[in-house]
Amino acid sequence: MSEKSTPAQRQARGPRVQAAVLAAARQELAESGFAALTVDNVARRAGVHKTTVYRRWKDRETLVTDALTEHLADRIPIPDTGAFESDLRALARAMVRSVSSIDEQGVTAALYSDAGRLPEIAAVRQGLFADRFRRATPLVTRAVERGELPEGTDPALLLKSLIAPVYLRLLVLSEPLDDALAEHAADLTLAAARAGLFRPA
Amino acid sequence: MSEKSTPAQRQARGPRVQAAVLAAARQELAESGFAALTVDNVARRAGVHKTTVYRRWKDRETLVTDALTEHLADRIPIPDTGAFESDLRALARAMVRSVSSIDEQGVTAALYSDAGRLPEIAAVRQGLFADRFRRATPLVTRAVERGELPEGTDPALLLKSLIAPVYLRLLVLSEPLDDALAEHAADLTLAAARAGLFRPA
Repeated sequence: MSEKSTPAQRQARGPRVQAAVLAAARQELAESGFAALTVDNVARRAGVHKTTVYRRWKDRETLVTDALTEHLADRIPIPDTGAFESDLRALARAMVRSVSSIDEQGVTAALYSDAGRLPEIAAVRQGLFADRFRRATPLVTRAVERGELPEGTDPALLLKSLIAPVYLRLLVLSEPLDDALAEHAADLTLAAARAGLFRPA
Repeated sequence: MSEKSTPAQRQARGPRVQAAVLAAARQELAESGFAALTVDNVARRAGVHKTTVYRRWKDRETLVTDALTEHLADRIPIPDTGAFESDLRALARAMVRSVSSIDEQGVTAALYSDAGRLPEIAAVRQGLFADRFRRATPLVTRAVERGELPEGTDPALLLKSLIAPVYLRLLVLSEPLDDALAEHAADLTLAAARAGLFRPA
């Protein structure tokens, strides 16, 4: 691609360049982490000159924030199978699959790496979970209405129990994520929910 | 302190200097993270010249590895109260207290930050959990012998369930760690253990 172009040409390929740079930033985060990420490396990977990057983002912090924010629109579907147990198992499998996709793993690792110290990234993270818990609330409400769960079951408390084993493997133990883990997480949560452990004291 | 000293004087204060530098490195990790840590900042905080740091550690990576390794001798006591439930609750409380102490939080955050990408730190982390699981195995074995847990209960699987909610709060949700969390983690693990969920398929 020639560096010489008219303003109209530059404007036409703006969104494509922007997407390429953000994707390159996520790949750099996944492969090398936030500590090692430089605008130079991101530009090289995206195949653009670094001034092109600096024209849109003033520093690597704003670049990384954009790269992660763009990616975090939550796409995990909330199942509605008619029964709590199958809802919970489907949700656990969807979550494990989402978190364990390659692109997602890089983003997740970055969210909980040193990049998470940026106030903007911390806010993205908080918002992400608040949104997830809010979206999954009907799954629990329906189960309570059907008499499958005790009255007063707290949806957020229940969902935290479901995701805890997944994040433990991903962030702490560095063990593989698979369907067996999803079933185990669902089993644990089911046993605890039926024992009434998700009703706040 | 004068920069002029005899070799004997330097040798005499060597261990103190070393401890001060490693402590300063941990404080820098806790406050600013691995991405922002520099030998200059560590030296300034420890009150030594940076050549003093470079005399002992060739770069920030080896310095951070030493700072974390020194700190990770596991000091969580394994309780033996005579009953599984009280053992488990005591272990959960001890673990939460250990992980939530200020110094420990910095170390933990560093272990799971970008510093965790260093192969030496990843190895420290793996070794830490292998050791924890090995040390806590008798707690589970005794419970099986007393008939409090089903035959075939896997100690590592059980311990992972106990620590999962704690690390979720610490690393993912950034919520406070307290005794109520320890009790909740113990409750969840107890319900699952009694339901036989820690016997591998």
